[in-house]
Amino acid sequence: MKARVPLLSLSPSKIPSLLKQGRITIAVVGLGRIGLPTAAVLSRAGARVLGADISEEVVEAVNRGRCKFVDEPGLPQMVHDQVKARRLKATTDVGKAVLRSDVSIISVPTPVDDRKTPDYSAVKTASALIGQNLTKGSIVVVESTVGPGTVENLVQPIIEAESGMRGGKDFGLASAPERSDPGNILANLRSVPRVVGAIDSRTLGIVSALYRAALGADVIKTRSPKTANAIKLTENLFRDVNIAFANEFSLLFEKLGIDSIEVINGCATKYNFLPHYPGAGVGGPCLPSNSYYLISEGVKAGNIPYMIRMAREINDRMPDHVVELVSEAMNEVRKNIRGSKIALLGVAYKPNIKDIQLTPAEEIWKRLTEMGGEVSIHDPMYVGEVVFGTKVRSMDGAVRGADCIVIATGHKEFKSLDLEALGKMMRSRVLVDGRNIVDPAVAARAGFSYRGVGRGR
Amino acid sequence: MKARVPLLSLSPSKIPSLLKQGRITIAVVGLGRIGLPTAAVLSRAGARVLGADISEEVVEAVNRGRCKFVDEPGLPQMVHDQVKARRLKATTDVGKAVLRSDVSIISVPTPVDDRKTPDYSAVKTASALIGQNLTKGSIVVVESTVGPGTVENLVQPIIEAESGMRGGKDFGLASAPERSDPGNILANLRSVPRVVGAIDSRTLGIVSALYRAALGADVIKTRSPKTANAIKLTENLFRDVNIAFANEFSLLFEKLGIDSIEVINGCATKYNFLPHYPGAGVGGPCLPSNSYYLISEGVKAGNIPYMIRMAREINDRMPDHVVELVSEAMNEVRKNIRGSKIALLGVAYKPNIKDIQLTPAEEIWKRLTEMGGEVSIHDPMYVGEVVFGTKVRSMDGAVRGADCIVIATGHKEFKSLDLEALGKMMRSRVLVDGRNIVDPAVAARAGFSYRGVGRGR
Repeated sequence: MKARVPLLSLSPSKIPSLLKQGRITIAVVGLGRIGLPTAAVLSRAGARVLGADISEEVVEAVNRGRCKFVDEPGLPQMVHDQVKARRLKATTDVGKAVLRSDVSIISVPTPVDDRKTPDYSAVKTASALIGQNLTKGSIVVVESTVGPGTVENLVQPIIEAESGMRGGKDFGLASAPERSDPGNILANLRSVPRVVGAIDSRTLGIVSALYRAALGADVIKTRSPKTANAIKLTENLFRDVNIAFANEFSLLFEKLGIDSIEVINGCATKYNFLPHYPGAGVGGPCLPSNSYYLISEGVKAGNIPYMIRMAREINDRMPDHVVELVSEAMNEVRKNIRGSKIALLGVAYKPNIKDIQLTPAEEIWKRLTEMGGEVSIHDPMYVGEVVFGTKVRSMDGAVRGADCIVIATGHKEFKSLDLEALGKMMRSRVLVDGRNIVDPAVAARAGFSYRGVGRGR
Repeated sequence: MKARVPLLSLSPSKIPSLLKQGRITIAVVGLGRIGLPTAAVLSRAGARVLGADISEEVVEAVNRGRCKFVDEPGLPQMVHDQVKARRLKATTDVGKAVLRSDVSIISVPTPVDDRKTPDYSAVKTASALIGQNLTKGSIVVVESTVGPGTVENLVQPIIEAESGMRGGKDFGLASAPERSDPGNILANLRSVPRVVGAIDSRTLGIVSALYRAALGADVIKTRSPKTANAIKLTENLFRDVNIAFANEFSLLFEKLGIDSIEVINGCATKYNFLPHYPGAGVGGPCLPSNSYYLISEGVKAGNIPYMIRMAREINDRMPDHVVELVSEAMNEVRKNIRGSKIALLGVAYKPNIKDIQLTPAEEIWKRLTEMGGEVSIHDPMYVGEVVFGTKVRSMDGAVRGADCIVIATGHKEFKSLDLEALGKMMRSRVLVDGRNIVDPAVAARAGFSYRGVGRGR
């Protein structure tokens, strides 16, 4: 093991040059959609990076210079280059990576379980392994999204107990939650300011300097890890609540014969309005879970944020609404879901990305299948692969002979559907647009029985 | 009565020149905070304007060139000029004004009653009077904020019954809801696009041309009056829901020892976040009522927007929370509200405006008074006037000898309070900031026991 200068004893002003000179070693624990680009960017900035992951498959792929996130522009090339330059290495041995590093970054998943309780087991495991291998004067940074207080009340005690060292004195501990948008992560790492909160001011200064130098991003210093974590949650909850608001009024506008999309676009001409649109549901690794991290802290504090919870439940109910619209639209052509062939377009949880974590499309698929529909699926990102236990077809393969098309993801490929041509391949012309990307007038002209979320007729 | 060309028979392209030539006469029914500036702007654009109001006092004041909305920059001068130029006249005779006009604009209040049911009585009365006096080929425009469907299902039937004419054939009917922000109305009338929806396409074209020419504003044509009304409500509900969201997480952050203002400002560094702040409550003629117009339509349609309702109730509870903070902060100096002197700063419902409609300050005042506090009030807009049955004092007059300052309105004058000087005049130094305009560190340095909404310690 090489001799190291304890990072915590340095002036933040030294960080940029040390980084460039390759004299800072960083362990990135968790090589997922955030961890891997973070590792690659730190490596490109000059750090020696040890990426640690429990999956042998992931580690092996990275060490061969491969990256499975093909939907992240620039990332596969960057991973390849950094591995080839021998600045980025992956290992399954978290302890060894931590032992050799000046900084350990926790970037592991924090899902919620079936009861909507945050599952911090990966954070706990990472914290314990870090504590067992931490050298004096080094720094731990939590990038995973966690409830405010989790770093202070869960991560810090575990590391202290395992290491026998004192946080803020013998080692530094900070939160620097990632704020990136899957599909655009490399660009976001640079353009979205990084929010940092630490348990002591030395760590705050050094981590801020490190992120600024490594990412080229602005840094917002906050007074505590819990503040930084609160910021990350609040900005995501803002989106979840506003999508729920749009879903709620859109369901009413459907009944009132008002087109919600026309309404939202009208509202957007006012200076203080930010448009969010109704849709088939909210998926992904963040929004479906993030509210529950805060709710969980609220339950403990005796102050439960019920509106945030209600927002979550409104969004969770949207796939069911899409199925209701399918029933309604098929009723117009005197068909039932049972026995009909339905083409589900889009499985990804959001447009132009290859990711099906908690995707609403799965709920729609399940429900239609349970009701006796014969559902074939198409998603340009997944053609030929098996998703929801069934093979993803080509567009034509999915639509041929179908009674109904259901759009569950707003992929760019679906914005220019040739409804005339598709209609000719179908047994009956029914279209349910869960993402409002088809112009209802175009659908009508092509002879489709049409329904769109929030589009009253 | 002069002979007139029926407006409805004209091409929209003729409207701008007719307007300039003084050949269009417009009745504005309701000369309140929106009606009066609308009348003045139409008059300035060349229309002959007959402003009608049931209040003799209002009519008399306008006919003397006076305007009570002194907080609307440019309005008093404009009213004065237009009246002097004899293009703007006021009358209590709505019927006669309508009879002489080509266009009748309804700009009357639409409050909610004690049971939170929309009170459309003023709209109904105006519609009846208009119907009784409407000439063939003229146009009715509803600017008042109403639930979607109210124009089609309430206003139109009344006018048709009273006039014996058919809407869309014998007379035009449109919604063109005002979207202005009190305190900034003249600027908004020009800068915020006007949303127009009509029951027929001729009316849509003519009303759009008229508003574009008269206001110099962009016009957004929508497919129906209910769409235009839905836009107006939705953009206001967006604010109400987002303020409720901020209030909800801020109450939790108080308990978690997190500063919500720091959190919100941190979130605002992300590209897709729009900041709203927690506070002492939401007042005014719009936001406290607007949700109920939509909820009322939801009840009828069997689809109640519960989250929007919950948002309203969260905001309605904020004055109580301010009083809780007063109890907490006074507890620190071993005082009770009972028997203490409390200086309430701000009675207006929002900053820099002279308006106390549904102001949260009144709830705070009531509750503190009920609890035995001796509340003196100061508001720079109201000094010397009687508000809440008590005389509004000067700043010094209100603060001298007080035990506690409560800030209920974020007036600009309160942003630079000299807490040192004020503290010296007080019996004890307690400060509760319901609008987060005082820096907590400054309050602490001046020796105040401090609480701010959403500011955990």
